[in-house]
Amino acid sequence: MSMLPPLAGDVSPLTLNRLSLYLRCLRQLREAGISRTSSQDLADRYRLSAAQIRKDLAQFGEFGIRGVGYDVDNLTDRLSRILRLDEPHPIVIVGMGNLGSALASYLGFNHGSFQVVAGVDTDPAKVGQRVAGFVVRPTEELADVVRESKAEIGVLTVPAQAAQSNYDRLVEAGVRAVLNFAPIRLREADGVSLKDVDLRIHLEELAFFLPSL
Amino acid sequence: MSMLPPLAGDVSPLTLNRLSLYLRCLRQLREAGISRTSSQDLADRYRLSAAQIRKDLAQFGEFGIRGVGYDVDNLTDRLSRILRLDEPHPIVIVGMGNLGSALASYLGFNHGSFQVVAGVDTDPAKVGQRVAGFVVRPTEELADVVRESKAEIGVLTVPAQAAQSNYDRLVEAGVRAVLNFAPIRLREADGVSLKDVDLRIHLEELAFFLPSL
Repeated sequence: MSMLPPLAGDVSPLTLNRLSLYLRCLRQLREAGISRTSSQDLADRYRLSAAQIRKDLAQFGEFGIRGVGYDVDNLTDRLSRILRLDEPHPIVIVGMGNLGSALASYLGFNHGSFQVVAGVDTDPAKVGQRVAGFVVRPTEELADVVRESKAEIGVLTVPAQAAQSNYDRLVEAGVRAVLNFAPIRLREADGVSLKDVDLRIHLEELAFFLPSL
Repeated sequence: MSMLPPLAGDVSPLTLNRLSLYLRCLRQLREAGISRTSSQDLADRYRLSAAQIRKDLAQFGEFGIRGVGYDVDNLTDRLSRILRLDEPHPIVIVGMGNLGSALASYLGFNHGSFQVVAGVDTDPAKVGQRVAGFVVRPTEELADVVRESKAEIGVLTVPAQAAQSNYDRLVEAGVRAVLNFAPIRLREADGVSLKDVDLRIHLEELAFFLPSL
């Protein structure tokens, strides 16, 4: 039985985050040499909800056999395809300060389909420096940099007051998605996905579990 | 009617992430001068699920009045207390490279109850340098640094091969929670919360929405 995938707009970011999480769990099982699992097994191992796993996966088709469970390799590959992680996604970083430089060298941003291929900065002291696998270019050349590098995703690691103008530059230069680390709400362009990253959310999750003093 | 809060172990990380998200939405409403909202209003404004909001909040008590909704100030304050964001949480960063330095200056890590109060590194060139509001100390003095700074949360921004030993040092020094950016699974100590951060999850969410070429 085939099933059409849902339209992108019908899938919530929370569902996608859970799919990413399941994929990470599956990769760990695969590394551990485990070839079969089930929603209940995943839930038990990783403190997830079996019902939620089944519901999330059901949005995208049929993956397991009732009473038999999932083939780890097969489910890993299919989730990778759903999340478009079977295609290359070149990345350009705008703002090569500490955060931009850290992300350029960050394993997760240079693994599998993701690869930081270019970076720009307005600081003449940074332009021309080699960071990770590329040489930093001036921000004013962003349109050329995007075209030459075929960057599909732009990462904004500039100060808040410079975020909107650089977002606009990225959109004009032709990137299809922007990951924004600047603590500001941007005016979004049509047809370009935007994801704001607030690293504080990780601290907030920890704070809840701290013992009362 | 009073209701005992659930034990920390009964609340899933995904629920906490959603509470953080609701809190962020409420803060935006408050900044916009909006004093009343409802689960449906929040869902409509921020593309969330009204049923999920009601279910998540119901775990922690009663917050709204049926047909009237929530008082934005009140719900903001109560969520802040639930997430323990009404108490100070001093932070020490282990590894003052690009990522550690970026986090030390990152607004979210120096806002409200969070404050980076100390940082250590093994590199003599970094020790003694002023970063954000503190002077970098040698990693070997970590126990003293934690005691003097009263740091409660440790942030690990060291290379993967140095993560376990520095996690163990942090635990021994008395921190109550660790945020780990190193791409490695750590052997956890009892009584110390551990949260692994994989920044790639943000890219994976964007990749799904990229147009097919």
